[in-house]
Amino acid sequence: MSAALKYDVVGVGNALVDVISHADDGFITRYELVKGSMTLVDTDRALFLYRALGTAVEMSGGSAANTMTGVASFGGTAAYIGKVSNDELGDVFGHDLRAVGVQFRPGRPDGETPTGRCIIVVTPDAERTMNTYLGVSSLLCTDDIHDETIAAGKVLYMEGYLYDRPEAKDAFRHAARVAHAHGRQVSLTLSDSFCVDRHRTDFRSLVTDEVDILFGNETELLSLYEVQSFDEAVALVQRDCHLAVITVGAEGCVIVSRDGVRPVPAVPVERVLDTTGAGDLFAAGFLFGYTRDLPLHECAKLGAIAAAEVISHVGPRPLVELKSLLS
Amino acid sequence: MSAALKYDVVGVGNALVDVISHADDGFITRYELVKGSMTLVDTDRALFLYRALGTAVEMSGGSAANTMTGVASFGGTAAYIGKVSNDELGDVFGHDLRAVGVQFRPGRPDGETPTGRCIIVVTPDAERTMNTYLGVSSLLCTDDIHDETIAAGKVLYMEGYLYDRPEAKDAFRHAARVAHAHGRQVSLTLSDSFCVDRHRTDFRSLVTDEVDILFGNETELLSLYEVQSFDEAVALVQRDCHLAVITVGAEGCVIVSRDGVRPVPAVPVERVLDTTGAGDLFAAGFLFGYTRDLPLHECAKLGAIAAAEVISHVGPRPLVELKSLLS
Repeated sequence: MSAALKYDVVGVGNALVDVISHADDGFITRYELVKGSMTLVDTDRALFLYRALGTAVEMSGGSAANTMTGVASFGGTAAYIGKVSNDELGDVFGHDLRAVGVQFRPGRPDGETPTGRCIIVVTPDAERTMNTYLGVSSLLCTDDIHDETIAAGKVLYMEGYLYDRPEAKDAFRHAARVAHAHGRQVSLTLSDSFCVDRHRTDFRSLVTDEVDILFGNETELLSLYEVQSFDEAVALVQRDCHLAVITVGAEGCVIVSRDGVRPVPAVPVERVLDTTGAGDLFAAGFLFGYTRDLPLHECAKLGAIAAAEVISHVGPRPLVELKSLLS
Repeated sequence: MSAALKYDVVGVGNALVDVISHADDGFITRYELVKGSMTLVDTDRALFLYRALGTAVEMSGGSAANTMTGVASFGGTAAYIGKVSNDELGDVFGHDLRAVGVQFRPGRPDGETPTGRCIIVVTPDAERTMNTYLGVSSLLCTDDIHDETIAAGKVLYMEGYLYDRPEAKDAFRHAARVAHAHGRQVSLTLSDSFCVDRHRTDFRSLVTDEVDILFGNETELLSLYEVQSFDEAVALVQRDCHLAVITVGAEGCVIVSRDGVRPVPAVPVERVLDTTGAGDLFAAGFLFGYTRDLPLHECAKLGAIAAAEVISHVGPRPLVELKSLLS
């Protein structure tokens, strides 16, 4: 028996507050950061980097959480599962989800571990380099997955970042099983090529076994299949997944389905200020369209609209109601 | 005997983290806010307003603290005295001062009272309406004034917002006496016409007795002297103060000194996005020039440059190094 549908999309991810600062390429070199990547750091390294950093701005982030706010901003319904602590940054995170109408399921409280944060260095080329102190978000486990919420969402959306932790992998598998048991679809974003690299075998079996819709970019897809050619990677993902949507930067994206491979162009942006959230918001637009049964290229177009909005300003979430951008 | 000079300017003020959100005029009406003003609120009201608010961004603020970051951003030296708590927002506040090279003297710790925050609603006309929960910043008292720091600054700069609390008034008087005892100058910004209105007698005696340089806008000056005519107010402040610099919105400012009254135009801005910090950064530019013995109209021009930068983006502090704007 299927539960009542309440949400277009239910997201599961690392609940993080972003600490965003600008720095030049010298900073990236000096502190041995890997430009464009996400690196997990411990408390000491996080404090060290934060001290080295210039003036910062705090904004709620977290990949899947950003995506859920995007779905809500288009006028869709969304819920989010991720762990925060009972501290100020946790309050900020919860507020910013609820403020846009996303149902927040923070999981069980876990003592004193603080809310996670992601130190984001934005370089003059608008690229973001992320150093994540996971904090309490790293304690997400199967017990935190609210089955009723998963069952009530048309599509489950999970971030590959979760795959850096065994308990979260279990939580992920559990959530996927609950979703499928209720006839829902399961989607995954690969999140980061280094993360894919660290957990390639698990990612591949997950994609084959559980994932109905795969999101990722070109680099992540090449890393997943350990191939050099995009065409080859596309052929492999077409074999493994019902649907894959692969972003290719300023060129837009490629939709890979049983029906074939179809490119959809990006929406041009006058000036790219900060690429943080580009993939997250692309997924938001796509899923908003998908849960409304729009043709796949229309879904991709919505994704492109949302991504264009978020890269044209600093911060990982839309600054305008995305539905106002629909003509 | 005079202490060694270490700072161009030493600021004293309410240490606050700004919680900035956009809303329309309907929000202002619905929650009975006074547009353009600063209102002190208690914890319950702060929580109530925060819950009502949309997605927010957290940035360090506090009027005098903003001014000190502006002085540092021009290449000057600055210190700041204000109270934060040992919590996450307190850490953010301290980080953002130190990150730009401002020496931070946080005063004595005070138990569990959290760091203060200012809920700022920015309306589509770029006007900001502020609701301040002072938190631990309201406990600033004479004991928190670090005399050595005051003695080491060419100019002491204090915000009128402090004048809402008797202990802070005492701290203010104490700081002014320390500064004068070391041959330093004392400056004050009137901060808010409603605040001036509440404490007019005290403000007037302070201006006459202790203030060498007065900052304020037209409305605040009219409120200080309870007159209707700007010329009349200017004549009165000329009698009471060595130097007053009165901003008149988009028109710029008027310098009032023993030598006469001189208007200096504002720097045009393509699009005003958020007026938060305009007065704070104007004072920063002016004081940076003043502590370098520039002619007063040059000081005002630096103020105008800094104000133009800060109103052209969201947030109360400069996003670029202000010295890069000097030709």
